[in-house]
Amino acid sequence: MSQAALDDTPAHDRPQTIDKPALIDKLTAVLPAELVLSTEEDLKPFECDGLSAYRQLPMIVVLPSTIEQVQAVLRVCHDNQVPVVARGAGTGLSGGALPLDNGVLLSLAKFNQILDIDTANRRATVQPGVRNLAISEAVDHLGLYYAPDPSSQIACSIGGNVAENSGGVHCLKYGLTTHNIVKLEIVTIEGERLTIGSDALDTPGYDLLALMTGSEGLLGVIVEIVVKLLPKPELARVAMVAFDDVRAAGDAVAAIIKAGIVPAGLEMLDNPAIAATEAFVHAGYPTEAAAILLCEIDGTEAEVEEDIDRVRAVVERSGATDIRISKDATERALFWAGRKAAFPAMGRISPDYYCMDGTIPRKALADVLIGIGELSEQYGQRVANVFHAGDGNLHPLILYDANVEGELEATEAFGGAICQLCLEHGGTITGEHGVGVEKIDQMCVQFPPAELTQFHAVKSAFDPGGLLNPGKAVPTLHRCAEFGAMHVHQGQLPHPELERL
Amino acid sequence: MSQAALDDTPAHDRPQTIDKPALIDKLTAVLPAELVLSTEEDLKPFECDGLSAYRQLPMIVVLPSTIEQVQAVLRVCHDNQVPVVARGAGTGLSGGALPLDNGVLLSLAKFNQILDIDTANRRATVQPGVRNLAISEAVDHLGLYYAPDPSSQIACSIGGNVAENSGGVHCLKYGLTTHNIVKLEIVTIEGERLTIGSDALDTPGYDLLALMTGSEGLLGVIVEIVVKLLPKPELARVAMVAFDDVRAAGDAVAAIIKAGIVPAGLEMLDNPAIAATEAFVHAGYPTEAAAILLCEIDGTEAEVEEDIDRVRAVVERSGATDIRISKDATERALFWAGRKAAFPAMGRISPDYYCMDGTIPRKALADVLIGIGELSEQYGQRVANVFHAGDGNLHPLILYDANVEGELEATEAFGGAICQLCLEHGGTITGEHGVGVEKIDQMCVQFPPAELTQFHAVKSAFDPGGLLNPGKAVPTLHRCAEFGAMHVHQGQLPHPELERL
Repeated sequence: MSQAALDDTPAHDRPQTIDKPALIDKLTAVLPAELVLSTEEDLKPFECDGLSAYRQLPMIVVLPSTIEQVQAVLRVCHDNQVPVVARGAGTGLSGGALPLDNGVLLSLAKFNQILDIDTANRRATVQPGVRNLAISEAVDHLGLYYAPDPSSQIACSIGGNVAENSGGVHCLKYGLTTHNIVKLEIVTIEGERLTIGSDALDTPGYDLLALMTGSEGLLGVIVEIVVKLLPKPELARVAMVAFDDVRAAGDAVAAIIKAGIVPAGLEMLDNPAIAATEAFVHAGYPTEAAAILLCEIDGTEAEVEEDIDRVRAVVERSGATDIRISKDATERALFWAGRKAAFPAMGRISPDYYCMDGTIPRKALADVLIGIGELSEQYGQRVANVFHAGDGNLHPLILYDANVEGELEATEAFGGAICQLCLEHGGTITGEHGVGVEKIDQMCVQFPPAELTQFHAVKSAFDPGGLLNPGKAVPTLHRCAEFGAMHVHQGQLPHPELERL
Repeated sequence: MSQAALDDTPAHDRPQTIDKPALIDKLTAVLPAELVLSTEEDLKPFECDGLSAYRQLPMIVVLPSTIEQVQAVLRVCHDNQVPVVARGAGTGLSGGALPLDNGVLLSLAKFNQILDIDTANRRATVQPGVRNLAISEAVDHLGLYYAPDPSSQIACSIGGNVAENSGGVHCLKYGLTTHNIVKLEIVTIEGERLTIGSDALDTPGYDLLALMTGSEGLLGVIVEIVVKLLPKPELARVAMVAFDDVRAAGDAVAAIIKAGIVPAGLEMLDNPAIAATEAFVHAGYPTEAAAILLCEIDGTEAEVEEDIDRVRAVVERSGATDIRISKDATERALFWAGRKAAFPAMGRISPDYYCMDGTIPRKALADVLIGIGELSEQYGQRVANVFHAGDGNLHPLILYDANVEGELEATEAFGGAICQLCLEHGGTITGEHGVGVEKIDQMCVQFPPAELTQFHAVKSAFDPGGLLNPGKAVPTLHRCAEFGAMHVHQGQLPHPELERL
């Protein structure tokens, strides 16, 4: 590892004085003045990173509209050792685009054009500020779509999707963002423009495309993206399957996958989630069930018929108490309406909720769900589970009231214990929401110092000064030491007293 | 980029004297003496890197059998600044595991165990020296297999597959090696052991798993691999489709993919390849055809029936002159036998052949094939094409006689022109065979200095001294300057006089 990697002090912790007026002058020298915001009134809309609870006013916001302007802004920041946070639509859930009070917030809002649609190669070239759903809308008349579909797809931007390696309901069959992009244009902190990946299968050299995807804005600023497009399936039907036991539902998920069926989506809701959702949208969910699965099959008519029959056989063997198959597009939409409204439905039964995001190997699904139930009793807090079961990607929603003293803290402790539980079962602390600021301490639990040090070495290869999005995604070793260095390796805790946070 | 990245002198070019007897003493202090080879007789079997034409006797060969021994060997090499080349089965096609006369060759031949098979999660944990096909054989009775299938799968090792990101006939549907592994154990040049990836979907932190895959032994030594297993499809049938025009065949490939069909394999042979193959194995190929496609569909019986009908409809519209569908497993094996024997068949009609490996966007298939034909006339050398058409992964085989003075040089120039042609159509200089030593100069054509510099920075984050497999995969800027720096960006050459090599 390079020496630079061993410097564990992030740039934003280093003593420095930034002369804000001088910096504004330098930025307005390279950008039209109206694209540089610095009054509190102008900055206010950028203080909040989407749906997360974190707030921070940036020092300055810039809104470049060309790649050359992004290069110029980054050169100014680099030359003046000013931290930079890139921001797309600001819908992130882990505070990945949270501004810094001593930094420039680089908004990519003006990069909102679809530049090219290539049907022969099934590719689209898009700017990072384009909304996820807008891509599918633009190619709908061609019978194509862009597969990854985060719940926020109506609002979130494709650049943010790449930065966070976003998932969604259909990623079980069609992969995460990293599997659905082929080329990126990025600008380095030094203002250099790089092309990463290519239009063809597999590119020689190190796989910087995958490295950049999910790097949470720490390695470079994404300014152009070539995404893959898929043909829209001829037909999709969804099976709603009820169970009177959470273990049976969890095991059914593993059994469906083991049978070689590849559902387009395979989601689970437990009883508290079913009850809250059904009261809200009346999707026809059985409110007495311990859990339901929503299993979508897509493809040609024959494929769908055949796989739906196979799903039915598997879940019957797994002890399903009720199986309903959507008869038409309307009923399919109704079955999904409940799942899609599950998060807002929680807002009706609890003043606040905290959405966790862990992944586990599928075979551990039942054990972990039962474990979360036990933790719920132990912490005296309600929890509802609604999640991407096929991917083993959990979303426990911890219900709490921020106005009751101590509840937020208890919720965070409960959340930490759930992360721990996922790790003990060979899982990870985040599936698709990213680390951001939210999970940064949990990274110390997931990774030992040698691997964190390797991450820092990779960071230094792109941004040795630590100016890009400092304080996010990868903790310093110093921070982990302060946090207590609770690394869990393959389910084994180094210190048994840390078994529960 | 870090300063280390700007040091463009690889370790093996730096003046140094290695005391071989002293190094042998240090290695035998950490390994049983019989695992350290140093006589010319013992070294001889390692001088040749599989099927490539390159030969070089290593200084020393070590054959560790435990991860701790690999760590100890790398520590000795690191402390003594000795270059190290890791080697699996030695079947590489680009000289990636070619030894160095001043370096240690680290053979992973003794890492040949399948450590764990986990059916619930459809994973197998294997050592790097396990043969690719041995994995599928070991899980065959469970109805599972490992999907990537390089032609050398009977002999090549899974560790080498990871190092080269190997492909194969079935990668069109099931992905390259990078899509079929979830976790690696690696040892760094400093002897540190790192776990990369996890058993769960998506791991936080930078995607070092993808970065390591295809890095050709330059970043670390792979000592353990967790691969994904897939359920064996119920049925597979192959359509053999003939065309009297190469353009029609190329366009049919694009049309099949555009129709939303995902064949398990989609291969093409042109007339010279058909003729040579048919004379060798009598697979029933129509020798008068300008090209044939082999299009395999797998899945359940209904899926296969339906997709075979769709393939038939598409290729009829594309001008197919003959369509034959395999009736049973025997006929399917016969249709594939020709494709699989195509390379050896060339050996019967030409003393030597040079296998190229480029990729292009599918829509450019017909243009590039016609362009290769024109180059063949221009260079006065025969060429046969047999390749993964669905992936746009070409394998032009240039036929020559190494005993005729000047033919090897002409062949290399012709090969360079084919690389150039691929790049001009938005492709890459290698699809699945790696860069190794063979394509290292072409990397200067594919990538501009800024991107090569970024590659070196990433390399420095793992191996700042440049001790791991120096001289392979990523050229120094110095080397590119000497070569002539012929970077082609998006089909545009900086110097028109370089339009043809």
